[in-house]
Amino acid sequence: MRHVLELSQDGGALTAALIDVESVSGNEAHLADLVEAALRRYPALGVERDGNVVLARTSLGRAQRVALAGHLDTVPTAGDVPSRVDGGRLLGCGASDMKSGVAVQLRMAHLVGSGALDPGTDLTWVFYDCEEVEADRNGLGRLARERPDVLAVDLAIVLEGTSCLVEGGCQGTLRADVTLRGRRAHSARSWLGENAIHAAAPVLAILAAYQPRSVEVEGLTYREGLNAVGINGGVAGNVVPDECTVTVNHRFAPDRSEAEAEAHVRAVFAGFAVEIVDSAPAARPGLDSPLPKAFAAAVGGQPQPKFGWTDVARFAQLGVPALNYGPGDPNLAHKPEEYVELAHIAEAEAALVRFLAG
Amino acid sequence: MRHVLELSQDGGALTAALIDVESVSGNEAHLADLVEAALRRYPALGVERDGNVVLARTSLGRAQRVALAGHLDTVPTAGDVPSRVDGGRLLGCGASDMKSGVAVQLRMAHLVGSGALDPGTDLTWVFYDCEEVEADRNGLGRLARERPDVLAVDLAIVLEGTSCLVEGGCQGTLRADVTLRGRRAHSARSWLGENAIHAAAPVLAILAAYQPRSVEVEGLTYREGLNAVGINGGVAGNVVPDECTVTVNHRFAPDRSEAEAEAHVRAVFAGFAVEIVDSAPAARPGLDSPLPKAFAAAVGGQPQPKFGWTDVARFAQLGVPALNYGPGDPNLAHKPEEYVELAHIAEAEAALVRFLAG
Repeated sequence: MRHVLELSQDGGALTAALIDVESVSGNEAHLADLVEAALRRYPALGVERDGNVVLARTSLGRAQRVALAGHLDTVPTAGDVPSRVDGGRLLGCGASDMKSGVAVQLRMAHLVGSGALDPGTDLTWVFYDCEEVEADRNGLGRLARERPDVLAVDLAIVLEGTSCLVEGGCQGTLRADVTLRGRRAHSARSWLGENAIHAAAPVLAILAAYQPRSVEVEGLTYREGLNAVGINGGVAGNVVPDECTVTVNHRFAPDRSEAEAEAHVRAVFAGFAVEIVDSAPAARPGLDSPLPKAFAAAVGGQPQPKFGWTDVARFAQLGVPALNYGPGDPNLAHKPEEYVELAHIAEAEAALVRFLAG
Repeated sequence: MRHVLELSQDGGALTAALIDVESVSGNEAHLADLVEAALRRYPALGVERDGNVVLARTSLGRAQRVALAGHLDTVPTAGDVPSRVDGGRLLGCGASDMKSGVAVQLRMAHLVGSGALDPGTDLTWVFYDCEEVEADRNGLGRLARERPDVLAVDLAIVLEGTSCLVEGGCQGTLRADVTLRGRRAHSARSWLGENAIHAAAPVLAILAAYQPRSVEVEGLTYREGLNAVGINGGVAGNVVPDECTVTVNHRFAPDRSEAEAEAHVRAVFAGFAVEIVDSAPAARPGLDSPLPKAFAAAVGGQPQPKFGWTDVARFAQLGVPALNYGPGDPNLAHKPEEYVELAHIAEAEAALVRFLAG
């Protein structure tokens, strides 16, 4: 175990140091301690600990405030700690998701805290816990519920891996169970029953024929989807089943609210028993306002829509424009051979410096 | 535990005594011991023990031989042993399925063994084990494989419950998996995948539209069926699934062989991946030959087709006409409040006496 986290080292070495402190969801306390202690060495940063969330804030009196947010936890390790370098890649649990992003956050804290970087906006750092587990344990979600003022900034950048592309907003997601009912009978006397699995035929036909929308929101094109992600029916090999459930997942563009997405799903399956299992709102990219535009310009390249639900939506629910931008490759998250390109860490650091100095 | 099974008592009391000796599948040895000992008290019966199968045979030199067959085992007890009488009903595990049938078998052994009944045919009693579990443990099936000569009689009566109706032959049964394949993807980027559950839509549509045959065989009308008995697909709530399996059960009339039934199922699902999981042949009712006809006449009433697969098919495979006839109500089998009407036990005993004396 390391007892000091040195933020003056380069981003790659810092990422390695972060990987080497295991922090599987629920066991982030030690890493949070190290991050807190490291940040407290900079008097210009107001540091606060809230559970396993670590907050740091500048008080420069700037007109606007930007949050840099990232989670400290990882999925369970799989023999991939400590980290190792292979060519230009750093391998290890959380390399991509998202200790490299946390390293970039901490590098900004060092540069600002040491006076090497004079930012054009005030800054808030949020390091939080339990992103990789059930949504109701998510540290950022808890903060949004309990202390929304902390998150009420002018732009939030969530440093989840995007391979150094700006990804705007995110899709919403809604899961629903479409349940068919019948009447149970012995399959040797099937005329006494009603087969609930057969009754699912029109539900699957609707799904197979469904044409998802592509929607442009603030210049980004979001593709939607409506998919069966599960189907389950059957009692025994000799029984006409009386129940069959199709679980569908609707991913919807940020021009729709959760309520509108629910209404859409209910309309698609009109006449069937639909129960909403869970849902989370989409987030608009926010690329129509100056600060996100300036960030996109500092990064360069064409912003992309985010396909997937991410914690940016927690900021969006508070009315805060939020972007995904980080050094990790999202396709490597949760994979056994997870890695991050060392060059991407340096690139993300440079882009943030350009933006903050600008 | 009883140490003597007294076959001279009336059928109801004998059924109660049988229920009171627990004989859940795999634990029939003690009951088989008692049955064997009881039968050995009648010198006219040649008794033989084979595993937990007990056989008894007359050697009267008659032109024809009739088998009376029944299984000794029950499904697991559920606080329903010992038996109890409530009004005209005897309650307890196996009351209907099929210790009342075994009691009627044993009553015939007593009447013939004691000389009270002079049968017109020779008789073979078969008491067997493991009917309520996997088919390959079935004691009658083992006998059919290892000693088919024992079962090569002119008529077999299986005393499974039919509420004292003659039920002829049985349907065949065939189970098949129809498997749909796709390509896995994150449900937020569903256009990268192919949804295997959606691909099941036409399979379910075929099942929903399927018109089963009704086929007359030897004067009995068999109704067929083709039903989904299970459907399963799905990887996780955010994944487009790459596999979905529909398990179908085809029940077919005795005018079709297993091979013909398989060909039919493959034709119905032409173009889909079909794997046969298991199958068992149908049995013709045999009501076009004199001995079964005589039995039906002795019972009275209109013979019915058997809907369900029963051990009569094991005789039918050996070319032996076989009927279901027993005192239990088949709808009560495997139910917690299983019972048998005491009057049905007496009625079945009387019908068998009429037939055998005739």
